[in-house]
Amino acid sequence: MSESEPIERLVGLLAKLPGLGRRSARRAVLRMLMQPEALMLPLAAALREAAEAVRPCAVCGNLDTRSPCAICRDPRRERGVICVVEGVADLWALERAQVHRGLYHVLGGTLSALGGVGPEDLAIRPLLARVAEDGAEEVILALPATVDGATTAHYLTDRLRPTGVRVTRLAQGVPVGGALDVLDEGTLAAAVKARRPA
Amino acid sequence: MSESEPIERLVGLLAKLPGLGRRSARRAVLRMLMQPEALMLPLAAALREAAEAVRPCAVCGNLDTRSPCAICRDPRRERGVICVVEGVADLWALERAQVHRGLYHVLGGTLSALGGVGPEDLAIRPLLARVAEDGAEEVILALPATVDGATTAHYLTDRLRPTGVRVTRLAQGVPVGGALDVLDEGTLAAAVKARRPA
Ligand SMILES: [Zn+2]
Ligand SMILES: [Zn+2]
Repeated sequence: MSESEPIERLVGLLAKLPGLGRRSARRAVLRMLMQPEALMLPLAAALREAAEAVRPCAVCGNLDTRSPCAICRDPRRERGVICVVEGVADLWALERAQVHRGLYHVLGGTLSALGGVGPEDLAIRPLLARVAEDGAEEVILALPATVDGATTAHYLTDRLRPTGVRVTRLAQGVPVGGALDVLDEGTLAAAVKARRPA
Repeated sequence: MSESEPIERLVGLLAKLPGLGRRSARRAVLRMLMQPEALMLPLAAALREAAEAVRPCAVCGNLDTRSPCAICRDPRRERGVICVVEGVADLWALERAQVHRGLYHVLGGTLSALGGVGPEDLAIRPLLARVAEDGAEEVILALPATVDGATTAHYLTDRLRPTGVRVTRLAQGVPVGGALDVLDEGTLAAAVKARRPA
């Protein structure tokens, strides 16, 4: 045991983050210990602030310091076009690409027979309610190009049909099996522009 | 701007850590926001505690909550054998391998003509003082197998010669150009056991 207990605890917590194993967590901790004032304490403060201030938007599921979130409150967004995404990471990726000027709806996952994820586990009922109440013109299904993503898109298309809303999905251009949030912005822009009826 | 300001600040700070780009920082932040109580607040507390409690050991340069550090204070360590490492990451790697039962000395870098790192930039003078005052029997140079590491080993061997201490370095077995802290423990153990005179 050469690593002291506070260091060991910090390494253990950082190693739980996606993309960081114990080795990279140790490197990160060492880097931070070299400049505690410049990096470590600001990071501690930013974590605490985010944990206390950030919450899910009650309308769309985006994460923000206020609910409804900045996108839902923005009067310049097209309120009749709702883009449905699996998670917040995909919402952020589409925002960075600046291709969608409407609103969003975060499902919180995709239907998965193997994973035991059913319609009641996702924010599908709130989506149907939003479409009915707000009189949306179009729902864009921006779901991952996986089997579960396609299953979810089919299910949503069926459920949305009675409302009469136009349902579209992203054009081919999203690689099969690919997650949205790792795509470059040009690919995302092309896929949104060439979207077609679901 | 879909990411709120506290989230953006947190992503920016995390992205400064080695091994984490903006994309993985965003993923990490999203994962944490999913469980603020279980991960985010404990991490904030651990960072603050480590920043406040951890300091360099005045004797060897290791990082610990006390100075002298736990290794320097441990009566079971062989006080006559000092293992010289470039940085704390290498010290931790050797401790994990459990191959060195003596003390350490962290140089804080290696000599580098290109990088403008001279002897006065490293903890060389304190090393010479320790060897002289504590009557060390052996100094093991566990430096990286790079040009700068070899330069540093030669320089230290010259400077240590007048003290009469036995100077050894790690056996071949450390891959050329390789950093110590990415090696598996078996390789490190073999390299320490087969160490030879410098
Ligand atoms: Zn919202
Ligand atoms: Zn020490």
